[in-house]
Amino acid sequence: MDITTEPLTAEAFAPFGDVLSAEGAPDRLINAGKCGRYHDRAALSFFEGRAGVSIFKAEPHSLPYECDLLERHPHGSQCFIPMSEHPFLIIVAPDLGDRPGSPRAFLTNGAQAINFHRGIWHGVLTPLAGPGLFAVVDRIGDGKNLEEVRIAPPFRVRTS
Amino acid sequence: MDITTEPLTAEAFAPFGDVLSAEGAPDRLINAGKCGRYHDRAALSFFEGRAGVSIFKAEPHSLPYECDLLERHPHGSQCFIPMSEHPFLIIVAPDLGDRPGSPRAFLTNGAQAINFHRGIWHGVLTPLAGPGLFAVVDRIGDGKNLEEVRIAPPFRVRTS
Repeated sequence: MDITTEPLTAEAFAPFGDVLSAEGAPDRLINAGKCGRYHDRAALSFFEGRAGVSIFKAEPHSLPYECDLLERHPHGSQCFIPMSEHPFLIIVAPDLGDRPGSPRAFLTNGAQAINFHRGIWHGVLTPLAGPGLFAVVDRIGDGKNLEEVRIAPPFRVRTS
Repeated sequence: MDITTEPLTAEAFAPFGDVLSAEGAPDRLINAGKCGRYHDRAALSFFEGRAGVSIFKAEPHSLPYECDLLERHPHGSQCFIPMSEHPFLIIVAPDLGDRPGSPRAFLTNGAQAINFHRGIWHGVLTPLAGPGLFAVVDRIGDGKNLEEVRIAPPFRVRTS
């Protein structure tokens, strides 16, 4: 099966999580008007844990991309903040009774971060260019917070 | 008064906060070895509030930079994650009984985020290039969480 990337918008991504960007008017102007604050844009949710900030460094992938694994974190949301201006690929799927349904793929515009809501099925981190550096705000805590499902046969993600 | 920028290192910045980067070996390898996780690198601390993720878009500044204001947030740490690979300027100062002491200035290497510890005196966000886009993990909550001090005469920050 092939799926085609969609441009990432807040509306299209709403069933899966939040898009964090500086689009539109800021919620507040600070620093004598020199800085716009787009306030509190991620629905963070942590069960028996707390928020932490980690750095991820991931190998770049290329398109078309073959996806054979989806995962989810039942105990916490996960926010990915790119530390470069390169677009990255996001793969998500709705939940069909403990298994992922039909996947969708989104491509960021190079100035967007995203926050997966707690328990949302998603692919692993897939930058499309180096350095593949991200800050990640997710749950720090004990207990099993990872479910993985192999996808067989894999599906393929193409650009539109 | 003129001060000279220092390169940002974890050791030099330790009295003021944390440096988040992918230097050295990761704490864990995930995603079949394709991603390194540098785990939980910021000492987040929030008094009567919670963590949130906001986006800041700030006007770029140039060096030498004249600094006439320092501020601090008594109720929460504040983590700045650049969404580009451009270095940015960080100004901090030790506390001398409710007033800032001698300021220091650090320049990031383009692949570092930083976390100001709770209550640390610092300058406003000063990117040195566009787009000036940052994700910020700080305290969401009520109450006065900003103290500002005018610096007169201003000091000037130069590159070394």
